[in-house]
Amino acid sequence: MSTVMSTSCQPVLTLLESISGPGDLKRLSNQQLAKLAEEIRQAIVQSVAKTGGHLASNLGIVEITLALHRVFDSPQDKLIWDVGHQAYVHKMLTGRRDNFSTLRQYKGLSGFINPFESEHDSFLAGHSSTSISLAAGMAIARDHKGENHKVVAVIGDGGLTGGMALEAINHLGHIQKDVIIILNDNEMSISENVGGFSQYMKRIKETFFYQDIKAKIDQIEGQLDQKLGPGVWQLISAVKEQAKQRFDTPGIVFEKLGINYTGPIDGHDVGAMIDVLSKIKDQHAPQILHVITQKGKGYAPAEEDAIKYHGVSAFSLEKIEPLVAPKPKAKTYSDVFTETLVELAAIAPEVVALTPATAEGSGLVKFGKAYPDRFFDVGICEQHAVTMAAGMAKEGLTPVVSIYSTFLQRAIDQVIHDVAILNLPVIFGIDRGGLVEDGETHQGVFDIAFLRNLPNFTVVAPKDAQELRNILYTAVKERKGPLAVRFPRDKAVDAESFAPFELIDYTKWEMLHNGAFNCKIDSKANNVVLLAYGAMVEAAKQARIILQEKGIEITLINARSAKPLDSEMLGKLIADPSLTLVTLEEGCVSGGFGSAVLEFAAQSKMTRPTCGQSSIYCLGVNDQFVEHGARQILLDLNGLSPQKIAEFVACCRK
Amino acid sequence: MSTVMSTSCQPVLTLLESISGPGDLKRLSNQQLAKLAEEIRQAIVQSVAKTGGHLASNLGIVEITLALHRVFDSPQDKLIWDVGHQAYVHKMLTGRRDNFSTLRQYKGLSGFINPFESEHDSFLAGHSSTSISLAAGMAIARDHKGENHKVVAVIGDGGLTGGMALEAINHLGHIQKDVIIILNDNEMSISENVGGFSQYMKRIKETFFYQDIKAKIDQIEGQLDQKLGPGVWQLISAVKEQAKQRFDTPGIVFEKLGINYTGPIDGHDVGAMIDVLSKIKDQHAPQILHVITQKGKGYAPAEEDAIKYHGVSAFSLEKIEPLVAPKPKAKTYSDVFTETLVELAAIAPEVVALTPATAEGSGLVKFGKAYPDRFFDVGICEQHAVTMAAGMAKEGLTPVVSIYSTFLQRAIDQVIHDVAILNLPVIFGIDRGGLVEDGETHQGVFDIAFLRNLPNFTVVAPKDAQELRNILYTAVKERKGPLAVRFPRDKAVDAESFAPFELIDYTKWEMLHNGAFNCKIDSKANNVVLLAYGAMVEAAKQARIILQEKGIEITLINARSAKPLDSEMLGKLIADPSLTLVTLEEGCVSGGFGSAVLEFAAQSKMTRPTCGQSSIYCLGVNDQFVEHGARQILLDLNGLSPQKIAEFVACCRK
Repeated sequence: MSTVMSTSCQPVLTLLESISGPGDLKRLSNQQLAKLAEEIRQAIVQSVAKTGGHLASNLGIVEITLALHRVFDSPQDKLIWDVGHQAYVHKMLTGRRDNFSTLRQYKGLSGFINPFESEHDSFLAGHSSTSISLAAGMAIARDHKGENHKVVAVIGDGGLTGGMALEAINHLGHIQKDVIIILNDNEMSISENVGGFSQYMKRIKETFFYQDIKAKIDQIEGQLDQKLGPGVWQLISAVKEQAKQRFDTPGIVFEKLGINYTGPIDGHDVGAMIDVLSKIKDQHAPQILHVITQKGKGYAPAEEDAIKYHGVSAFSLEKIEPLVAPKPKAKTYSDVFTETLVELAAIAPEVVALTPATAEGSGLVKFGKAYPDRFFDVGICEQHAVTMAAGMAKEGLTPVVSIYSTFLQRAIDQVIHDVAILNLPVIFGIDRGGLVEDGETHQGVFDIAFLRNLPNFTVVAPKDAQELRNILYTAVKERKGPLAVRFPRDKAVDAESFAPFELIDYTKWEMLHNGAFNCKIDSKANNVVLLAYGAMVEAAKQARIILQEKGIEITLINARSAKPLDSEMLGKLIADPSLTLVTLEEGCVSGGFGSAVLEFAAQSKMTRPTCGQSSIYCLGVNDQFVEHGARQILLDLNGLSPQKIAEFVACCRK
Repeated sequence: MSTVMSTSCQPVLTLLESISGPGDLKRLSNQQLAKLAEEIRQAIVQSVAKTGGHLASNLGIVEITLALHRVFDSPQDKLIWDVGHQAYVHKMLTGRRDNFSTLRQYKGLSGFINPFESEHDSFLAGHSSTSISLAAGMAIARDHKGENHKVVAVIGDGGLTGGMALEAINHLGHIQKDVIIILNDNEMSISENVGGFSQYMKRIKETFFYQDIKAKIDQIEGQLDQKLGPGVWQLISAVKEQAKQRFDTPGIVFEKLGINYTGPIDGHDVGAMIDVLSKIKDQHAPQILHVITQKGKGYAPAEEDAIKYHGVSAFSLEKIEPLVAPKPKAKTYSDVFTETLVELAAIAPEVVALTPATAEGSGLVKFGKAYPDRFFDVGICEQHAVTMAAGMAKEGLTPVVSIYSTFLQRAIDQVIHDVAILNLPVIFGIDRGGLVEDGETHQGVFDIAFLRNLPNFTVVAPKDAQELRNILYTAVKERKGPLAVRFPRDKAVDAESFAPFELIDYTKWEMLHNGAFNCKIDSKANNVVLLAYGAMVEAAKQARIILQEKGIEITLINARSAKPLDSEMLGKLIADPSLTLVTLEEGCVSGGFGSAVLEFAAQSKMTRPTCGQSSIYCLGVNDQFVEHGARQILLDLNGLSPQKIAEFVACCRK
């Protein structure tokens, strides 16, 4: 392979351009691979600067990825990337380099791995800690079919705190299948890492704990009388050997669980990586290779603040600042949520906050700074977080669990078994409730439907920032039982300034605009009532303006409680056969808020079968997994943009 | 305390009778405690022989419980029993001895711990692996409130395989809260235990791994020349000390994770237990005490077959046989499920079976015996089981996950993220779908509502054994995508003999009895259509007989698919305003099958707003957690017995 020299002042990414698939790596020398690594870093920084994306983790994993594709043969060998947002390098090496400008755009490259995108993506992953279970399953399938390729899971030290990864290690140690685990240890998940395991691995790196024992034995040897018999020397040598075998392994915990341990090795030394991988490739038992890397490697700003550069919006390479002209940043719902918690903590000493490794994304870092003793980032452990909160609530605290809708799916049993049955006052702040740009794995569309089925639960969503604040204030004051309050990944409505906290009955709905209901306008044009849940209130308001321009007046209700429903208001609406009710929610239509309204109507009819009823239509997210792309595009695709809502209303009037 | 001698030939349980609360234990000598232990064993065997219940685990934990209540002060100190079915002794010692004859009966003592029952039950537990998270939460609350009681979690080695227990250990090692973990190691969860952890603990017991190194150093010392300088001796001594500190601990894995380890000790030596507990009570860091016990201890039949005696029905003490006269045992749905899988495995080599530690309860043990290489009991690891199955399916196998409805709650995210998004052909055999006698923690009432929300999923329930067989056969043959097939914990309908396997379209409903629909009988009495899901078909059949006796004819449909609905048949039903549809499901009404029918109707109306529609009523499990008691009682309480269904139909006819 020839190296074409650059003729312009712009460096030409010659090596990278020559790679059309992982097979092309086999021809490169270690030196060329090191150069390629630099080119890849440049390409990633330039690309992510334009599109936004996960920067630091991908800069850290360049050499690991090169070494894996050099030693293994994808797609015959299965490379499984935990979480999948660390796979940009892998994508570049497997034919997707030219599409990188479309990363995370609608219909563009996914920000995660996805088999629909490439045969080199052996599975799909957006959530953490799944790779070892997948590898175990794939290895069993391989052996069952009598094939002999390799299965390699690449997992971060953050992912290893997830219970299912530990379940998988435990099981893999038992079944002894031929699986290679690459532990990419950068001492950091999204947030700073927590847990005994993480501290243990830190100690591995700081001191190889056999070292000083060995040094002391050597000292003894040095001082021993040379006249001692050969038996003694044999014994000393035996002790040393035994000590070495048993203790000269920093990975004793893994070894004890039945996983062969190698490491730690420098994950930025591509030659060393290739050597070690080539050796362990020939073994046929579970292996873990502990690799030390630096997040953000090679890009100074990201090296210095890897958390900031975990996931970024587009930024300027020169100024290391966002491309868009700086203006006062609009507060997100996450911001309002955290700020409110900080205020509440001051007046309610029993309030504590928990997060499963999403302290940055949820803004909860601020709470941790203000109240370090009342803040618990448990790592990627949704199950533990929820049940620990239950234990806290049982003993009189008011735990607030900040959790993304999509990650709450990891702890549904704990929500039911440990929180709901005992009716404990745990507050769930459900962040990213609704559609997000990340795609299928991250859509927060199931929480309303899941939670409203649970006895004892109250399931609400505020229309704006002030309401979010009052809901939290009321819940903290009243400590009534489990409460889920959801909000979208979006800027908060009306978050410029706040009225003082106020106790509100958040299980009651709010009439925002009375177009037809309870008033005397008797016109065919006036009989649509929008029941908007949470963020949909804002969309509905805009839809109302569009409809007004067409001369259509509607009624708009802030239906902020999905469980319980406001039976008084809904009862009146249902009983009026001249009305058409349209429920709006940013969640799956199946089993969601609208479905609850239908159930209520059926129940009403059961008690008053001869009465007329209003018509009810339910709008929400369709019965399919929603791809990645800008939130507004995704909302529109699901009929939830103001335009689409207005169109529907215009059509559905009786 | 005086010991009254028995005057009859029946032994009088004198010591036990003198215990009205745990405080009474403080006065007993170790010898008396040992005698009390024997009395408790007798009482448990006699009681469980009458009522059924968990026998082996409770016999194994007698001395641990005595020692805990002797050393700690419940309820000030918090004792948290993992799973909670090992708490019979605890119940006997905390004022509930006299009610033991009501164990697991409706309105009687719960089979699990439950704070509603006693202040000594510091939490509720029916599912495994929650106790360490709860203990961490309670310890944080204690410290936050400036209290100084002790928090003790008692967990089995089986419970420790659960990911959330490992998450909790990892986190506890990090936060270093004062929590004592009693690891009750009987080398067995419900099924035989699996996992690297379990094997590791086995090795702890077999050899204390520091022993032979130490022996060799001693040997060296013996042979060393006495003339060596004091420096050498100091060094040798230092090496020994260091080796001791670092390696003379069988619990090195726990120590490395930041949990102080003590053990292993004999869990049937109550004196030793008290000594050790008294010592570690005074420490203020996370502790684990590793206690070795024997399941079934003291009752020979249970010692010999602890799995058989894990949970038992009433049995005769003399014959060690069931009290009821032996008759050919009716096959359960679990039996039919497993037998079918064994048959299918013979004709479909890609079929493999997985279970998260419920091989006995689900009957899957039989599959494991027939196909040991295609059977995977992963331990109490629902998350890992589901994602491992996803990995298998991706690589061409057809994994069948046998899982209880209530435990599936532990793996909802894996079902969504790893199975549903990629539309993988994983078959979920959802056992115990519906109401069970165990109570709140074990009710299988959420699965229909959870699963029918998921894109790509097919959610079905057979009316009888033959249909279950054909569904499985078809799914294995077609490998279409994720399928959940649910059945109750009950004897199977029509399981005496089977027709050959047949491919069926299980997404189509089946008209079982056409009373009104599509026929010319035009009578007000004839317009009710029962849409019965799964086990409710049998109840509906019986309801129909009751109604016939009253002269009421109804239409009965086997609505075996909750997702997709049979749009063709349902479309016709909905369009007929003379019909009243009643959906029947053994699951929560909120968001369930009936709710899906309501959504379909609303959708139909959307496309044909001017047409009339049938009325729809939904029957299912009410919006509250269902207590323990016989299944028939619980069904009746929720309006799902044949009598209650018939009553409802008689009332709701238009």
